[in-house]
Amino acid sequence: MNRENILELLEKVRSGAVTPKQGLHRLENLPFEDLGFARVDHHRTLRHGFPEVVFGQGKKPEQVAAIVRSLLRQKCNVLVTRCDRKILAAVRRVSAKASYNEAARAISIVQDNKIYGEGVIHVVCAGTSDISVAEEAALTARIMGNVVETSYDAGVAGIHRLLSTREALTRARVIIVVAGMEGALPSVVGGMVSVPVIAVPTSIGYGSSFGGLTALLGMLNSCASNVTVVNIDNGFGAGYVASLINRKK
Amino acid sequence: MNRENILELLEKVRSGAVTPKQGLHRLENLPFEDLGFARVDHHRTLRHGFPEVVFGQGKKPEQVAAIVRSLLRQKCNVLVTRCDRKILAAVRRVSAKASYNEAARAISIVQDNKIYGEGVIHVVCAGTSDISVAEEAALTARIMGNVVETSYDAGVAGIHRLLSTREALTRARVIIVVAGMEGALPSVVGGMVSVPVIAVPTSIGYGSSFGGLTALLGMLNSCASNVTVVNIDNGFGAGYVASLINRKK
Amino acid sequence: MNRENILELLEKVRSGAVTPKQGLHRLENLPFEDLGFARVDHHRTLRHGFPEVVFGQGKKPEQVAAIVRSLLRQKCNVLVTRCDRKILAAVRRVSAKASYNEAARAISIVQDNKIYGEGVIHVVCAGTSDISVAEEAALTARIMGNVVETSYDAGVAGIHRLLSTREALTRARVIIVVAGMEGALPSVVGGMVSVPVIAVPTSIGYGSSFGGLTALLGMLNSCASNVTVVNIDNGFGAGYVASLINRKK
Amino acid sequence: MNRENILELLEKVRSGAVTPKQGLHRLENLPFEDLGFARVDHHRTLRHGFPEVVFGQGKKPEQVAAIVRSLLRQKCNVLVTRCDRKILAAVRRVSAKASYNEAARAISIVQDNKIYGEGVIHVVCAGTSDISVAEEAALTARIMGNVVETSYDAGVAGIHRLLSTREALTRARVIIVVAGMEGALPSVVGGMVSVPVIAVPTSIGYGSSFGGLTALLGMLNSCASNVTVVNIDNGFGAGYVASLINRKK
Amino acid sequence: MNRENILELLEKVRSGAVTPKQGLHRLENLPFEDLGFARVDHHRTLRHGFPEVVFGQGKKPEQVAAIVRSLLRQKCNVLVTRCDRKILAAVRRVSAKASYNEAARAISIVQDNKIYGEGVIHVVCAGTSDISVAEEAALTARIMGNVVETSYDAGVAGIHRLLSTREALTRARVIIVVAGMEGALPSVVGGMVSVPVIAVPTSIGYGSSFGGLTALLGMLNSCASNVTVVNIDNGFGAGYVASLINRKK
Amino acid sequence: MNRENILELLEKVRSGAVTPKQGLHRLENLPFEDLGFARVDHHRTLRHGFPEVVFGQGKKPEQVAAIVRSLLRQKCNVLVTRCDRKILAAVRRVSAKASYNEAARAISIVQDNKIYGEGVIHVVCAGTSDISVAEEAALTARIMGNVVETSYDAGVAGIHRLLSTREALTRARVIIVVAGMEGALPSVVGGMVSVPVIAVPTSIGYGSSFGGLTALLGMLNSCASNVTVVNIDNGFGAGYVASLINRKK
Amino acid sequence: MNRENILELLEKVRSGAVTPKQGLHRLENLPFEDLGFARVDHHRTLRHGFPEVVFGQGKKPEQVAAIVRSLLRQKCNVLVTRCDRKILAAVRRVSAKASYNEAARAISIVQDNKIYGEGVIHVVCAGTSDISVAEEAALTARIMGNVVETSYDAGVAGIHRLLSTREALTRARVIIVVAGMEGALPSVVGGMVSVPVIAVPTSIGYGSSFGGLTALLGMLNSCASNVTVVNIDNGFGAGYVASLINRKK
Amino acid sequence: MNRENILELLEKVRSGAVTPKQGLHRLENLPFEDLGFARVDHHRTLRHGFPEVVFGQGKKPEQVAAIVRSLLRQKCNVLVTRCDRKILAAVRRVSAKASYNEAARAISIVQDNKIYGEGVIHVVCAGTSDISVAEEAALTARIMGNVVETSYDAGVAGIHRLLSTREALTRARVIIVVAGMEGALPSVVGGMVSVPVIAVPTSIGYGSSFGGLTALLGMLNSCASNVTVVNIDNGFGAGYVASLINRKK
Repeated sequence: MNRENILELLEKVRSGAVTPKQGLHRLENLPFEDLGFARVDHHRTLRHGFPEVVFGQGKKPEQVAAIVRSLLRQKCNVLVTRCDRKILAAVRRVSAKASYNEAARAISIVQDNKIYGEGVIHVVCAGTSDISVAEEAALTARIMGNVVETSYDAGVAGIHRLLSTREALTRARVIIVVAGMEGALPSVVGGMVSVPVIAVPTSIGYGSSFGGLTALLGMLNSCASNVTVVNIDNGFGAGYVASLINRKK
Repeated sequence: MNRENILELLEKVRSGAVTPKQGLHRLENLPFEDLGFARVDHHRTLRHGFPEVVFGQGKKPEQVAAIVRSLLRQKCNVLVTRCDRKILAAVRRVSAKASYNEAARAISIVQDNKIYGEGVIHVVCAGTSDISVAEEAALTARIMGNVVETSYDAGVAGIHRLLSTREALTRARVIIVVAGMEGALPSVVGGMVSVPVIAVPTSIGYGSSFGGLTALLGMLNSCASNVTVVNIDNGFGAGYVASLINRKK
Repeated sequence: MNRENILELLEKVRSGAVTPKQGLHRLENLPFEDLGFARVDHHRTLRHGFPEVVFGQGKKPEQVAAIVRSLLRQKCNVLVTRCDRKILAAVRRVSAKASYNEAARAISIVQDNKIYGEGVIHVVCAGTSDISVAEEAALTARIMGNVVETSYDAGVAGIHRLLSTREALTRARVIIVVAGMEGALPSVVGGMVSVPVIAVPTSIGYGSSFGGLTALLGMLNSCASNVTVVNIDNGFGAGYVASLINRKK
Repeated sequence: MNRENILELLEKVRSGAVTPKQGLHRLENLPFEDLGFARVDHHRTLRHGFPEVVFGQGKKPEQVAAIVRSLLRQKCNVLVTRCDRKILAAVRRVSAKASYNEAARAISIVQDNKIYGEGVIHVVCAGTSDISVAEEAALTARIMGNVVETSYDAGVAGIHRLLSTREALTRARVIIVVAGMEGALPSVVGGMVSVPVIAVPTSIGYGSSFGGLTALLGMLNSCASNVTVVNIDNGFGAGYVASLINRKK
Repeated sequence: MNRENILELLEKVRSGAVTPKQGLHRLENLPFEDLGFARVDHHRTLRHGFPEVVFGQGKKPEQVAAIVRSLLRQKCNVLVTRCDRKILAAVRRVSAKASYNEAARAISIVQDNKIYGEGVIHVVCAGTSDISVAEEAALTARIMGNVVETSYDAGVAGIHRLLSTREALTRARVIIVVAGMEGALPSVVGGMVSVPVIAVPTSIGYGSSFGGLTALLGMLNSCASNVTVVNIDNGFGAGYVASLINRKK
Repeated sequence: MNRENILELLEKVRSGAVTPKQGLHRLENLPFEDLGFARVDHHRTLRHGFPEVVFGQGKKPEQVAAIVRSLLRQKCNVLVTRCDRKILAAVRRVSAKASYNEAARAISIVQDNKIYGEGVIHVVCAGTSDISVAEEAALTARIMGNVVETSYDAGVAGIHRLLSTREALTRARVIIVVAGMEGALPSVVGGMVSVPVIAVPTSIGYGSSFGGLTALLGMLNSCASNVTVVNIDNGFGAGYVASLINRKK
Repeated sequence: MNRENILELLEKVRSGAVTPKQGLHRLENLPFEDLGFARVDHHRTLRHGFPEVVFGQGKKPEQVAAIVRSLLRQKCNVLVTRCDRKILAAVRRVSAKASYNEAARAISIVQDNKIYGEGVIHVVCAGTSDISVAEEAALTARIMGNVVETSYDAGVAGIHRLLSTREALTRARVIIVVAGMEGALPSVVGGMVSVPVIAVPTSIGYGSSFGGLTALLGMLNSCASNVTVVNIDNGFGAGYVASLINRKK
Repeated sequence: MNRENILELLEKVRSGAVTPKQGLHRLENLPFEDLGFARVDHHRTLRHGFPEVVFGQGKKPEQVAAIVRSLLRQKCNVLVTRCDRKILAAVRRVSAKASYNEAARAISIVQDNKIYGEGVIHVVCAGTSDISVAEEAALTARIMGNVVETSYDAGVAGIHRLLSTREALTRARVIIVVAGMEGALPSVVGGMVSVPVIAVPTSIGYGSSFGGLTALLGMLNSCASNVTVVNIDNGFGAGYVASLINRKK
């Protein structure tokens, strides 16, 4: 039941074709959630800077391409995460503007270049193996209209390298810290700044790193109070939340 | 916004005091979930045999007593689970009809004696230490209007005892099986009958029983196809679902 | 020892060839479980609507085909779960009626079209990746003689989509909810209805979803009282139990 | 070595009492981190609205009182978390302004009433047992200069109650969601809003809730992209990060 | 249905009061498991040397005393495990012969002094804290009619002490090895002998011993082929199985 | 230092070429473990019926063949576990007598046909997928000189099939029970007999069977007192210990 | 059999009272491990600086006192870990020199003041709650004859405090790092120095710190190559190993 | 900012071109961590015997070759761990001196043959499957300038083999013990010597060895006080720390 239906019903009430009691009965039984759906949808078109995102992993190239084609009509940016060059080829047949970030294993199609972010989002990562997840976070934040800076060689066992980025860190409105193994980096970064730190554990490591569990637990138990955590390897989620935090009023 | 408010609005539409378009606007913006709430509430009074349940653990005697007092007005049965004799004393000051099932550590107040169940619910348990949870399940099912039978000494290591209950098991419409330690009983019972079996792992055991985790995992991996599982020690949940399964049309 | 043997023994008792005491001794030592076995078998042929089920995973195509051939003689429906097109090819050589449900990765051969279920079984799933398990559940329920409805795009993060299925959910006699990741959907669905909800965790997810463990734990701890749980990815089990719940007297 | 010492050294260099080479040597060997320390401290006094926080658990009343006395000189707000009435008594002897939030088990002393937050922080919690952690979050946010709203009876199994708070949720700049058991609430709330959601798992539950682990895992695997997570029962951390997100430029 | 009933039936068959066919029908429908039960019971009285065992933990003194009183009639030995001096006092009122093994926290009442074991059972334990479990194993084996030897100070970190018991170990028909912490002892002992080794992990340890889990896992992964394992702290089970292994034909 | 060396030394002491003090010094410093080694070796040749065993997994065909060639000189039986047909081909080039048990994935070469066991070893397994592990156990026991019986279709969900093996089980001196999924079978078998039961969990299952962990935990928590457990899929270990238990004096 | 016995035997060989063959036989059968035992004991008295250590937890005051009394005769230092003031009182009755370190909950009796260590052992800890474990490590190292320095307020979230200890850290021969929560400190310290770092996880933390498991896993996965780890809260072990590393040739 | 810059600044202060206050300001704001960095770098060139290490796993052959080329300029030894023959081929094109240790799967290029170690490092391993990790440890220690001895067939189930290495073990300054399965070897070795033992768990095993977790836990709970532990399969780390311990003053 949509606005037209309700309006029609109310016209009938006015005309007497339907009594108020009958009207109440109908209204009471209409699936209200459809109203909610419509409202959300309407709202959605107002949320400038929100990209449409496709999780590429486990999908076939032609499936991804079809989804991308339909999304492009919305005139917003499109992001496809966790995809390979086969998916890229399929998507390129749909849009020549599709560009591929090899490190992030992600495709982006930019239709909206505006900056929606207030300040800078800084992405730090511990080791070179973590760069893939860090780039996914950075790309997500960029495609959501943010200025993004990165520091990609800043593990805690070489604390001087991390300290040399202090000035850049202090400038940021929000910081994303990506680390595998013991996941100690967010605690150190968290102690150096006064802004929110989003920690992303990665599955980098071996033995008792248990696929990222150790880094995840370490970050959840951070002694720095300004750290929150997302799922293992979830660079996209970190970039998404950082963008919401950085969003202008 | 409740039914009265909506009726009032529709009367105004009929009288012309409010135009259909204005009416649409107001309806569109009302918190529809209140409608939902009202409907659920209304619906609730129609669901004969559903008790009001209070989880007693962690609540103070006077708190439980206050909640019970307000529930008694609904004229349905009242069940208080996981409570001790202090809570009982407080509840008895509110209702002289409150009776205490020591094994189940639960208080029940019966205001509706009707049988809502189609067949028999059978509760089996493995060892004497599991009886507390089994009784919580049985009491819940009884207070929801079911005929309940029990077999409380039927562990798998003494298979002949279990086999002697076969006839009773075959009669049941749904069976609840309560077991700690290795949690093997639901598989054996499940293989003997053609009705749904609800398995309840208990925290009975020591060492690598890990507070019921071993029984829980065993039940989830049952080789009998007719077994579903609830949380450790959740006798109430098992009795509740069994009652829903057994409910007459 | 079978019926014939016992009858023969009793004839000998009557004729005096065997004294009652000798007869007692022989009876006491016969393997009673054979009696039990026979009885169960007999019972089995009375259980209309129960399919014969083959777990295809790990079996060779010719093995599955041989099993299917022998099952077809029972004149009941046959279901082969977790199988690929190689198995399908082998089964088709045995029965031309074999049809393949690609999403469920299951073969079904229908020899009995009767409806044994009282009401509707509704299968809900959260994401498109969960559809495979949901289809296994739906197919199982259909082949056991039930009317099955499905809602396959109803995750909790888009609550309006779920709410739009409320009416359909309310109609159902039993609901199967399939979800991976955080496994929150059964709680929300459970709170919307008054019928049993069977929750099926799936292995969909990454990082700390731990192959479905997170969804499983979430479902076991559901705050809705009408939820029971089966093993990870066990669509078959859910469809089976739902059929038992829905079975006519 | 502080600023005065360095200035003194530089004066000596200018006067010739110390040669540039000697000056270099001394500077090179001074513990540079003391500079850092001083800078942080200086910086700290500029961070208006940041409270001094004492983790009360495991500390003796007199210890807490002594720490509070020294903190009061800083003229900022003081917060003592996880403490009982014995600690309160000791703190009251130090400051008559100390007030106790029983639900949060926290003491606060307000010396700075200014609002530093841009928008509203909304704290939602699932069950009445989660209120303690929710209140710790709310109190932390308030003492850091934020307007805080709360919705404390909004579990996912009664989705209508949650939906009735939609308007309030939509108003918020950042939302804290506190839940135990299956931890499903952040996913539902996350799907209803476009702002950051900070999820706080609680240790409320029994059996396979494993002291909050199930809720924690559920939240980390949320299908809503705007959810980040803090440690089990860490209401303080959630309130702290929410305040950083909400802070005015 | 017991032996008397069956005999009566057979008499009726002989007398012609019941036809063989009628007799068959009745026998076919009798609860065969009762036959089983009877047979087991009968069999039981033939299993000389098997004690009646009561798990004392969680039972009230008077309950244990009542059980013991009824068991004493069987003229076999009685063992009460995991009990304190309160239970002892209650049991002593029932039987003056009850003796208490303080280390094992167990009561034994000997009514049958015969030796049923073929060879020697040797119980080794690693540290002084493991003696309680080791004594439970030794006492169980003794009360089941075995000659038991013990070596109670033989941890792997002092390998020479263990080696000094080699001769005694070589004499044994079966060895029980009790150890906490890393649980390495069964591997070393297992490599020194050619008889079965029953490993009992104990909950002795701290930190990552996780209540005996580490010892349990270590024992299950023993590189010695002659090691089997029982549950954490299950001295009784080890003594019981060792007795079955050592039993004379 | 071997017997010859020591004898030579003692001869020198007798002849006076070496003083007793010098002799003491030399003896004191000889690596006593070599004595031990020699004794063990000597002992080994006395342990008739003990096969030489090669763990094939992870070894190259030529490596296994070389080891087998050297073992054949000992005139005892040889067993190669966990190997494929490539290894078989290599071993066959070394010994034409090598036979391959496909189900057990094991090669055996019999050079000693004598029976060393007192009674019968019975191997039970729950499902057809467990047969591989069961056969490894049976083959190990046979090659160690035992009479082995097997029952390979006896899951707990079809209890009548298990009961029909009762007579055979009662005959056995020791029973090996192999089961995956919930691992309930050892409890049921354990309750039916008075001999030692060795439980072997298998990695058969899916979802929360966690590669056999669930079956392992279930078996460790068996309510039957006569059950001990070996590692997941360790059919060899079970067969080995069963042989030690069954060995004649 | 000791040296005297062997000498005696050899004398008999020389005198002809025992033939070399007889001598060989006797030697061959003597429990060689006694030789080993004696040698170790002798060796022990040469290991200056090694204290005798008693693990106090779980022992009764009089037991500890008795052990201490016997140890005092060895003239080495005595250390009693994990003990309370009751044990102290009992020990003081045995030795007036017993001193109690309240933070470490340990008693020490110094009889040997010599320094056996080459360099300095530095003990760092993260938070004030970790001091107890740190002090146990420091005390152990001191009583084993080492110069020990400590830095007890150096968490990673306040990296400047840690950096201010750099000079001291650089001086050390071996460093012990004690930390709970996320256990990140050893990685940072490890990256600042070129000496071995012994990491001690503590059980300090809450929620997903899981009693120190998170810190333990973090330390095992340290990205610094010079870190090794001991058990949770094992300050004694860390101090012991550090002393072995620091020991003079 | 380096030494030259600071000297230049101080010259300007002396000359009056910069006032002391201006100088203070500049110093105060310089990134002090650069000082730290410089110092570390300088320090590094002084640390003779420290190799440059590349973790080969997950890197492409050309990447590793490029890194090796740049490292060779430092004139120190180069070690590439966890690499295959493809990487070897690429590295050989860069340096003809590259040699490959097949067991350790590591490449080494020796440019510095000096011995930096004081004593002997002894590497023990339990089974032949553990040799790969043991060799990585041994190679690391050798390339860092140590004399290394190895004992590679010394499992605890054959204790005599281990005892035969006692003399060699006693000679060592530090011992590395590598073991999978139950990980018991470090405890036995630890009890035989008075030097530090570094335990390396390996992922060798099956079933409940859980990829090395069982060995890891066993080693952390060792009853020998001189054992510390590194991550699963971390032979490199063990060799590195052993070298630091063994380093001459």
